[in-house]
Amino acid sequence: MKRIAIDMDEVIADFNTKHLQVFNRDYNESLTLNDLTGTRLRELRPHLQHEIIDYLKDPAFFRDLAVMPDSQQVIEELSEQHEIFITTAAMEFPTSFTAKYEWLKEHFPFLDDMNFVFCGDKSIINADYLIDDNARHFQRFKGKGLLFTAPHNRNETGYTRVDNWLEVRNYFLS
Amino acid sequence: MKRIAIDMDEVIADFNTKHLQVFNRDYNESLTLNDLTGTRLRELRPHLQHEIIDYLKDPAFFRDLAVMPDSQQVIEELSEQHEIFITTAAMEFPTSFTAKYEWLKEHFPFLDDMNFVFCGDKSIINADYLIDDNARHFQRFKGKGLLFTAPHNRNETGYTRVDNWLEVRNYFLS
Repeated sequence: MKRIAIDMDEVIADFNTKHLQVFNRDYNESLTLNDLTGTRLRELRPHLQHEIIDYLKDPAFFRDLAVMPDSQQVIEELSEQHEIFITTAAMEFPTSFTAKYEWLKEHFPFLDDMNFVFCGDKSIINADYLIDDNARHFQRFKGKGLLFTAPHNRNETGYTRVDNWLEVRNYFLS
Repeated sequence: MKRIAIDMDEVIADFNTKHLQVFNRDYNESLTLNDLTGTRLRELRPHLQHEIIDYLKDPAFFRDLAVMPDSQQVIEELSEQHEIFITTAAMEFPTSFTAKYEWLKEHFPFLDDMNFVFCGDKSIINADYLIDDNARHFQRFKGKGLLFTAPHNRNETGYTRVDNWLEVRNYFLS
């Protein structure tokens, strides 16, 4: 049995779709996920950087994100053979704590909330694997990092990459 | 430089004094810290177990706890030589997240909030030391546990014990 730590935003929670949707609505734009390849919304529209970040300070922002395809089923399968922890960098947006907790309880009811970790610096995580879209979290992590593909990290090299949850299933169960 | 993980309740936050105060007020009792030696309030008054736990579900309960004597100064000193993380089992009371975060920012402003960890099962913590009043957290922790004396753990043996923050200072700085 291995211990697998899993990030939330852009890994199990579809952060970008909602962020783009509220931004497009408010600024009359029609940006898509493709526009975020190798970048982030705040870098694409630097003059609106503060407004773009401010969306995330709304306590409800993270409550109704869509679930990433296949993540529920694959994580439930993985949890039968492995120890699963959800490790999210929630300290960047402390107002998100409750929404993130409720979202996890709603969409991943088979996970034990004693295995939820709201942190900042993920080098504190003691696990065999970390599935994350931010490669910076792998630098001081002593297990193996699996880079979950997201628009912003498409040009990142040097890490084992998984493009979606079916690939995660293959990685661990095949 | 070592990494030291530090619990909140009964270690840096004086949980018991407030819990006893609201309980004594509401049930016309005069219980003291001495009455909690080797036990907990909910075990001492089992017929009021639910009411005793319910206090902790109030989102504001943890916001105005007193700071444990000498903890601020000693942790600030320790932080000059060591990496400090605050690791609290907040998942037991998810309504406490915001109050705990604000309390830390108010009383330990010199700590980086990227080093705050709200978790449940502390075996996820990757640190050299864990200062905690609950010995159960040491069982799967791979660093060294330091048992911070609290009324409920006075009869616990088998762990290195620190009675107060001046003893913690001596342990690390002498």
